[in-house]
Amino acid sequence: MNILVLHGPNLNLLGRREPDHYGSLTLDGINGLLQDAAQNEQVQISFYQSNAEGELVDAVHKAIDVFDGIIINPGAYTHTSIALRDALLAAGIPVVEVHLSNIYCREDFRQHSYISGVALGVISGFREQSYLLGLQALIAHAKQTSG
Amino acid sequence: MNILVLHGPNLNLLGRREPDHYGSLTLDGINGLLQDAAQNEQVQISFYQSNAEGELVDAVHKAIDVFDGIIINPGAYTHTSIALRDALLAAGIPVVEVHLSNIYCREDFRQHSYISGVALGVISGFREQSYLLGLQALIAHAKQTSG
Amino acid sequence: MNILVLHGPNLNLLGRREPDHYGSLTLDGINGLLQDAAQNEQVQISFYQSNAEGELVDAVHKAIDVFDGIIINPGAYTHTSIALRDALLAAGIPVVEVHLSNIYCREDFRQHSYISGVALGVISGFREQSYLLGLQALIAHAKQTSG
Amino acid sequence: MNILVLHGPNLNLLGRREPDHYGSLTLDGINGLLQDAAQNEQVQISFYQSNAEGELVDAVHKAIDVFDGIIINPGAYTHTSIALRDALLAAGIPVVEVHLSNIYCREDFRQHSYISGVALGVISGFREQSYLLGLQALIAHAKQTSG
Amino acid sequence: MNILVLHGPNLNLLGRREPDHYGSLTLDGINGLLQDAAQNEQVQISFYQSNAEGELVDAVHKAIDVFDGIIINPGAYTHTSIALRDALLAAGIPVVEVHLSNIYCREDFRQHSYISGVALGVISGFREQSYLLGLQALIAHAKQTSG
Amino acid sequence: MNILVLHGPNLNLLGRREPDHYGSLTLDGINGLLQDAAQNEQVQISFYQSNAEGELVDAVHKAIDVFDGIIINPGAYTHTSIALRDALLAAGIPVVEVHLSNIYCREDFRQHSYISGVALGVISGFREQSYLLGLQALIAHAKQTSG
Amino acid sequence: MNILVLHGPNLNLLGRREPDHYGSLTLDGINGLLQDAAQNEQVQISFYQSNAEGELVDAVHKAIDVFDGIIINPGAYTHTSIALRDALLAAGIPVVEVHLSNIYCREDFRQHSYISGVALGVISGFREQSYLLGLQALIAHAKQTSG
Amino acid sequence: MNILVLHGPNLNLLGRREPDHYGSLTLDGINGLLQDAAQNEQVQISFYQSNAEGELVDAVHKAIDVFDGIIINPGAYTHTSIALRDALLAAGIPVVEVHLSNIYCREDFRQHSYISGVALGVISGFREQSYLLGLQALIAHAKQTSG
Amino acid sequence: MNILVLHGPNLNLLGRREPDHYGSLTLDGINGLLQDAAQNEQVQISFYQSNAEGELVDAVHKAIDVFDGIIINPGAYTHTSIALRDALLAAGIPVVEVHLSNIYCREDFRQHSYISGVALGVISGFREQSYLLGLQALIAHAKQTSG
Amino acid sequence: MNILVLHGPNLNLLGRREPDHYGSLTLDGINGLLQDAAQNEQVQISFYQSNAEGELVDAVHKAIDVFDGIIINPGAYTHTSIALRDALLAAGIPVVEVHLSNIYCREDFRQHSYISGVALGVISGFREQSYLLGLQALIAHAKQTSG
Amino acid sequence: MNILVLHGPNLNLLGRREPDHYGSLTLDGINGLLQDAAQNEQVQISFYQSNAEGELVDAVHKAIDVFDGIIINPGAYTHTSIALRDALLAAGIPVVEVHLSNIYCREDFRQHSYISGVALGVISGFREQSYLLGLQALIAHAKQTSG
Amino acid sequence: MNILVLHGPNLNLLGRREPDHYGSLTLDGINGLLQDAAQNEQVQISFYQSNAEGELVDAVHKAIDVFDGIIINPGAYTHTSIALRDALLAAGIPVVEVHLSNIYCREDFRQHSYISGVALGVISGFREQSYLLGLQALIAHAKQTSG
Repeated sequence: MNILVLHGPNLNLLGRREPDHYGSLTLDGINGLLQDAAQNEQVQISFYQSNAEGELVDAVHKAIDVFDGIIINPGAYTHTSIALRDALLAAGIPVVEVHLSNIYCREDFRQHSYISGVALGVISGFREQSYLLGLQALIAHAKQTSG
Repeated sequence: MNILVLHGPNLNLLGRREPDHYGSLTLDGINGLLQDAAQNEQVQISFYQSNAEGELVDAVHKAIDVFDGIIINPGAYTHTSIALRDALLAAGIPVVEVHLSNIYCREDFRQHSYISGVALGVISGFREQSYLLGLQALIAHAKQTSG
Repeated sequence: MNILVLHGPNLNLLGRREPDHYGSLTLDGINGLLQDAAQNEQVQISFYQSNAEGELVDAVHKAIDVFDGIIINPGAYTHTSIALRDALLAAGIPVVEVHLSNIYCREDFRQHSYISGVALGVISGFREQSYLLGLQALIAHAKQTSG
Repeated sequence: MNILVLHGPNLNLLGRREPDHYGSLTLDGINGLLQDAAQNEQVQISFYQSNAEGELVDAVHKAIDVFDGIIINPGAYTHTSIALRDALLAAGIPVVEVHLSNIYCREDFRQHSYISGVALGVISGFREQSYLLGLQALIAHAKQTSG
Repeated sequence: MNILVLHGPNLNLLGRREPDHYGSLTLDGINGLLQDAAQNEQVQISFYQSNAEGELVDAVHKAIDVFDGIIINPGAYTHTSIALRDALLAAGIPVVEVHLSNIYCREDFRQHSYISGVALGVISGFREQSYLLGLQALIAHAKQTSG
Repeated sequence: MNILVLHGPNLNLLGRREPDHYGSLTLDGINGLLQDAAQNEQVQISFYQSNAEGELVDAVHKAIDVFDGIIINPGAYTHTSIALRDALLAAGIPVVEVHLSNIYCREDFRQHSYISGVALGVISGFREQSYLLGLQALIAHAKQTSG
Repeated sequence: MNILVLHGPNLNLLGRREPDHYGSLTLDGINGLLQDAAQNEQVQISFYQSNAEGELVDAVHKAIDVFDGIIINPGAYTHTSIALRDALLAAGIPVVEVHLSNIYCREDFRQHSYISGVALGVISGFREQSYLLGLQALIAHAKQTSG
Repeated sequence: MNILVLHGPNLNLLGRREPDHYGSLTLDGINGLLQDAAQNEQVQISFYQSNAEGELVDAVHKAIDVFDGIIINPGAYTHTSIALRDALLAAGIPVVEVHLSNIYCREDFRQHSYISGVALGVISGFREQSYLLGLQALIAHAKQTSG
Repeated sequence: MNILVLHGPNLNLLGRREPDHYGSLTLDGINGLLQDAAQNEQVQISFYQSNAEGELVDAVHKAIDVFDGIIINPGAYTHTSIALRDALLAAGIPVVEVHLSNIYCREDFRQHSYISGVALGVISGFREQSYLLGLQALIAHAKQTSG
Repeated sequence: MNILVLHGPNLNLLGRREPDHYGSLTLDGINGLLQDAAQNEQVQISFYQSNAEGELVDAVHKAIDVFDGIIINPGAYTHTSIALRDALLAAGIPVVEVHLSNIYCREDFRQHSYISGVALGVISGFREQSYLLGLQALIAHAKQTSG
Repeated sequence: MNILVLHGPNLNLLGRREPDHYGSLTLDGINGLLQDAAQNEQVQISFYQSNAEGELVDAVHKAIDVFDGIIINPGAYTHTSIALRDALLAAGIPVVEVHLSNIYCREDFRQHSYISGVALGVISGFREQSYLLGLQALIAHAKQTSG
Repeated sequence: MNILVLHGPNLNLLGRREPDHYGSLTLDGINGLLQDAAQNEQVQISFYQSNAEGELVDAVHKAIDVFDGIIINPGAYTHTSIALRDALLAAGIPVVEVHLSNIYCREDFRQHSYISGVALGVISGFREQSYLLGLQALIAHAKQTSG
């Protein structure tokens, strides 16, 4: 099994940006935790971060026939990108949407997601645990559908 | 550590009700999975289901000073109960909100939650895995805050 | 054929409450008319009234495998109860929604029903006749689908 | 007693048009059932169908002092015609609004009726039975007010 | 004169729950103050608290022909319960709506009340004084209408 | 000078229909008053009433090159007919919109007019005087633009 | 008969301000026309203009028991002043609302009037004629109600 | 292949009406262009214009089993006629919706179409070319589905 | 203790204006009742009424360092004056908002208050008692905060 | 060059009122800074403050033919006064709108301005610098249009 | 004549992505059809696809003084990109907007276009024919404006 | 002091694009004016323009620890980019938002800014002066906070 983790805009600044909302781990720190967890589960895992909507769309396209699952934290594009939604829908790869903060406790414009409607499910609010739980959800889903 | 799992209205019918949305496990089946997982993690776990908003509010009140965390699937009360929100806020116990189906893919009136604003986080869309991931999220949160 | 009549909140006060909207018959009076009509049609009929949302949900659950049709006047829960909607949907028993008054002539908040979307149909505005016509509609539907 | 049945736009196509929503009876079939039921009840009944809003308004005007009750299925004009509403209000004849399909389960723009606010009541969702129940409701109403 | 005080959901937790909004008095403390004030005014007073919407509706029904006035703090049901509104309207007993906090300074969903439209008036924001002022308002109203 | 008076749907019933809103004069009565006033002012005047939107559109078309001004009471089509608005705009004849009742005091759906945006002005609420004042407004406008 | 003409804010600038919307007559010019028309009709007429909401409210109060009718062009206060609405309602003097421009053809925020709901009627869009027609409407109304 | 072209209200005035929006060709001019293009493509073509909603509905009904495709410019009924939408849906004939002007650049109320939801597609803004392109689209669609 | 009572627009007309909503006491009558109650409580009290928004703002400014509490019935400015809200906020004097009628039972535009968000609390619907209860609330608040 | 600075309601309290939003300078302090800056630029400058909407409208009227530019901080009237907008539009003097605080970061009701639509531009959020920058913007604009 | 065809995000996946909405042709297939049609019409044609909003804006800028017309299928940026709208407006090149699917039959968020307001016209719903018809519309427009 | 000026999409076209809204200076012209002004004030200044949202986000990230202030004209991204807002918030550098045109006088969709909520303040409508005033505002702010 081969999983792609996509990080959206501004997540490269983790550790510096509003620790009350996002925690104090860096993005490398999160990727390291995911790498360890993937190894334990014997699945391959890759990482990609971009601040550009178009590059994230490209990354989803390139994932076709390569990856079996996507964990995406779309950052601000959660709320504005129909292009990313369309890319995920077209790719047809199972997707789990994750957020570090609980987006349903924040500003109104952060409470709607264009991505949730094309995802298996959503995990929001558990800091770095959101990613780790997302990884487990994706693996469990793969077992059920391949079983 | 001592955890309470609250199941809202109609969840007693699981296995019978709309399997496309909710899967084919019964509520006892889910509780069994949670019991096993809790035992592995060496935490105590209890279960309560009710179709009545007032009884769920009562259950939250009785949880004060007894439980260290609540996993709640508020069912239809997710969208209509401010009383349940107030009870959880007053109890001051860490709460994880879970849903079997991805509520953000469904009817408009299921896309707003009164509970999310007082929860640590939300996990939605992974069938019974939503509960199991919620259990892990709660344990991880406890470790961090007690650490 | 075995039919359950469910009366929602405040209908126990019939005869006393706002006769302009609801007529002057008591609930027992309405039940008596329905009993007579059912006898004429040779169908079994039972009655239940509650002011509590959760008890009405319970009553719907208990109706599974017992009743072949439900006539429900959800009263104020028409406009606020997603739990009752979910219960009726899960039960899978044919439902007719009835109202004594014409709810479409009243306050804005009475003009939307969470129940109509899961009912065979709606009869609103004919005082006690709404129930009697609902009984006939249910019997006619049963004949068509069993025919 | 003398009753007018008004059928709105496109109802002349019944039997051909979207049988999932409207059933497979033709308009003549429905009129025949109503004719029989009226005869049993010893009331006079007449029928009129038009696709034109103005002609339906004219028909309502001509009904003044001739008919004692109107059963109307306003079709698409349910949702767009204030002129028809005004005509019925001006005529002052008791009106029952009927619909073949349950309009509260359909597109948003079919869930508001300009007619309901000037009708005795509404019956929606029971195919041809909606008309037959409407006939009974009208007769029962006449008995009560003349009684 | 005989007055009923109704406390809605979560008010049994007073003293523990968000003291910034609700003050530090317990519910018994408030009831004691009301008892003293009633005695001074030579009126009878009774108390009832419930977390269940249906039980509060029942309590209103039982108040008919027993009590001459109701002071109600509907808690979260202020904003969601049409059933409670209907019960109060049907009972026909003068009602004063009170709130500990100033609900018009809080979240949007707390700024609309289904109850205000059937009350004599509303008193909001004066902690336990809201109840005491409500008692006086009810007595003054009784004197005027009996005078 | 040659003026056309257009009366929309249901105005043929004047004198019979809701006298509180519309007064007790018949349409012929109003036309008579207008005829007298026109004669005094030495202008030609013609009258047309229809319940059909399409016929009113046709009447506006036929008015081109024949009439120098239109007084229209569009009745219920005020609020629903973009076709009538387009016809008046295309005809390019000065238009005065009149209403017997003050439409801004009535139901919400009567407070928006598709016609006002293409009229010289609006006169609403003075019963038959609305038409007579409209005639004067049209004549005054003609004098100003021809002067 | 004794009539008060009230001119709202900025109308003292007439003749200078946006002649496309308001024409080129000064306020004195309009008052002169009204004076002449009133003399012809043998009614007394007075004029008052203010840019201050409170002074217009005062003027309405002082009109009580002095004037038999009010013609008001509330200017911008049309759209923002509930105080002026309340004053007119309290005064109980027949009111005609007039506007120089057709306010229904202009910006959205000019299409709602707080005054229309308490006026006999509205005349909008005929420049200075709006006032003259308003005078006639007021006189005609007085004759009818005193007749 | 046999095609019907339906022109809605006010299109009979083409050439006279607002040339900035609609161009300077007459309706006969447009029909002539369509006739020539149809002859080139060896398809039969017929034309019908009406200002009446009901007559357009009738025309759609009569097209059943006679025509293989409809090109419709519904004019103002685009935005107000659910009856026309229902007729087209019931007829089950492929429909192309065309507009002379680009309706998405105009008033808000012209930017929603009840017809688009039951059409193959929409062509808007190319003056008479909208019709000619619509003819080609219909022919291309017929070839694909018959191929 | 030194208290200022502010009466907003049109309240000088009390006794004359819509007695159903506002009672039959004059403003002097109300001030007299307040004077007596203040004397009993041994507090100083002053009164000011104005129909002008700016004068009420001025009065709030002048109250700084002079008064210890304000009872305000902002009348129509309740719903339109942000300037008055800002003045009260800037003054920093405890404020109680009172209304003679229950504003939550009236027109939509009377159900929002700009003042409530900067007040200690709101008392609405008890006629002159609203003022008297407001006085008590202010005194009780002063005792608590000085105690 | 001759410039008028208009200060709206509550600005006379500057230095006392909410220093977090408005800074600690008094209005005289700001006027002094503007006086110095104007002297440097060799332009005349005058100041006026009022809490009354009508007085501000009067001040704008009197500025006609006297001043070449207006700097206005409309305070709370920014959001409620169409009369002030109309006055500025009628005066035809170049206007710069300034705000001490960044109004786009504050309550919803402070984020819409009736004034911006008739101003050259808006400067918001730089405390007293907003006025000084506004002065420069006005002078720069004058040079460009006179150059 | 020299035409640029711009394809927005995800259109590079054509043939793979949701064939129900978009057909089974690849993007190269569509470009080939357009190349052939352009050759027949003796016009030059170029193609560009990008998933990035900024690159599409760049492409529009580079088209200035090079191309005489643009056919754009903006994909998801139809609904979210004001930058693309501004670029097309600034470029001043005639634009035709095309869509493979009928966007007016799809999700609400796909029914508004920021591009339509700056285009000559829109063609939506005819699969690859939408592009071919767009080419013809552009050529016809060029002939008319150059003729 | 070291300042970064960020120009958003389409600003590279300045001088060509809609001179009524944006003036006739090129972007180089504006940068030259800013360079001169910065030199006078003895501050360093750098410039960057991009049409791509992601590149602007990158530029903000790179500004961390390098620049002491940002002047940003976000162009169309003002209204659509939450990513840019988040980047500016995370960077923690003082930001001034500027616009050439007065965005509050333009289309509705240009009247909301995602950037204003994280800026010190906003300057809108003074053509190139908006940038120069922004530079001064930033310098003044720096002096105050460092003083």
